[in-house]
Amino acid sequence: MTTESSTTDSKRSPKWELRRQAIIDTSARTFARQGYHATGIMELCTANDLGKGALYHYIGSKEELLAGIHDRVMDEVMLGANRVAAAGGKPSEQLAMLGDELLDVIHRYPDHVWVFLHEFPALTGERAANFRERRRTYERRVEAVLQAGVDSGEFRDIEPRLTAMAWLGMHNYTYLWLKPGGRLSARDVAKPFAHILMRGISTPTAGVGE
Amino acid sequence: MTTESSTTDSKRSPKWELRRQAIIDTSARTFARQGYHATGIMELCTANDLGKGALYHYIGSKEELLAGIHDRVMDEVMLGANRVAAAGGKPSEQLAMLGDELLDVIHRYPDHVWVFLHEFPALTGERAANFRERRRTYERRVEAVLQAGVDSGEFRDIEPRLTAMAWLGMHNYTYLWLKPGGRLSARDVAKPFAHILMRGISTPTAGVGE
Repeated sequence: MTTESSTTDSKRSPKWELRRQAIIDTSARTFARQGYHATGIMELCTANDLGKGALYHYIGSKEELLAGIHDRVMDEVMLGANRVAAAGGKPSEQLAMLGDELLDVIHRYPDHVWVFLHEFPALTGERAANFRERRRTYERRVEAVLQAGVDSGEFRDIEPRLTAMAWLGMHNYTYLWLKPGGRLSARDVAKPFAHILMRGISTPTAGVGE
Repeated sequence: MTTESSTTDSKRSPKWELRRQAIIDTSARTFARQGYHATGIMELCTANDLGKGALYHYIGSKEELLAGIHDRVMDEVMLGANRVAAAGGKPSEQLAMLGDELLDVIHRYPDHVWVFLHEFPALTGERAANFRERRRTYERRVEAVLQAGVDSGEFRDIEPRLTAMAWLGMHNYTYLWLKPGGRLSARDVAKPFAHILMRGISTPTAGVGE
């Protein structure tokens, strides 16, 4: 019991958490370069400069590491969505802020997002269910803002689900070309994207995006 | 020389081409399920019910097979783009038709598109250059239609490159949720997407998408 409890304690320490985050970030880079399935535990050990036992102490399993990469992105995405909800404002303003926040995460975590979008089918059981639920929760936030705009008359009578998928596609797909240190910042892209989509769904009288 | 020439001949026969296409389609399904790097030649032999020598006779190498999957999608995408160019019409009509054609390909080739979008970094040398060039050629078609709309005054003064990336993102991203046999057809999605984007970029007087 003493050993077990000590392991649990050390697994929750801030130092353990920090080291785990660093391993997640390094492993995201490795997976992004050579693929999740093609990357063996020994390669992760080398990349993280850790022995096998030490690596497992932090990550549990390769699949748990993949889930950790997903969670790291989804944590950031949901933090952004919560900031937007807390800021309030008209649905059009909310949608523009959601775009800013999402592109900021995609821009800052290119490797994580690459792994997130490509390797999610490798998650199984509860981890797959958790991933789907988190993803769906975020999509519902976008849909709710669109629905609010329809209800208030700011947006025309669009189908919120399909419009949310269009919005998500526009933004998520930037992971292929919006790179840190590139010519365009996240905001350079978020602004014209918001402009196009907002004009695309606003009622003529709302004057959005003019 | 006789053997060489006979090999070349048999490699160009319609029968050889048909068999090669079938192998490309079957292998796309295999790669989509378990990833390009994680799939060995022996698994491809099993999936295609062929010996190693016979498989190589049709595909040359695993990387050539990957290039073949890309080309199969890009052939269809460019055929669609050529039909649109031949049909003529206003830029807004051209853009709507391009969306119809692109979603039709994505809807019909979910495995190929999955592999196409996820595994392209595995292409090297001339194959990588060819892939980038074909992709860029298609993007330029979309940009040219957008530029034509700006020039004619049908679209407002948008940035064609960034707007093309928004358009591509909206459409390409459907590969994650638009499935054959699903609730929505390609056209069910293409129409509202065109509506959103066209209103988003049209000048107020153009009356597009009203």
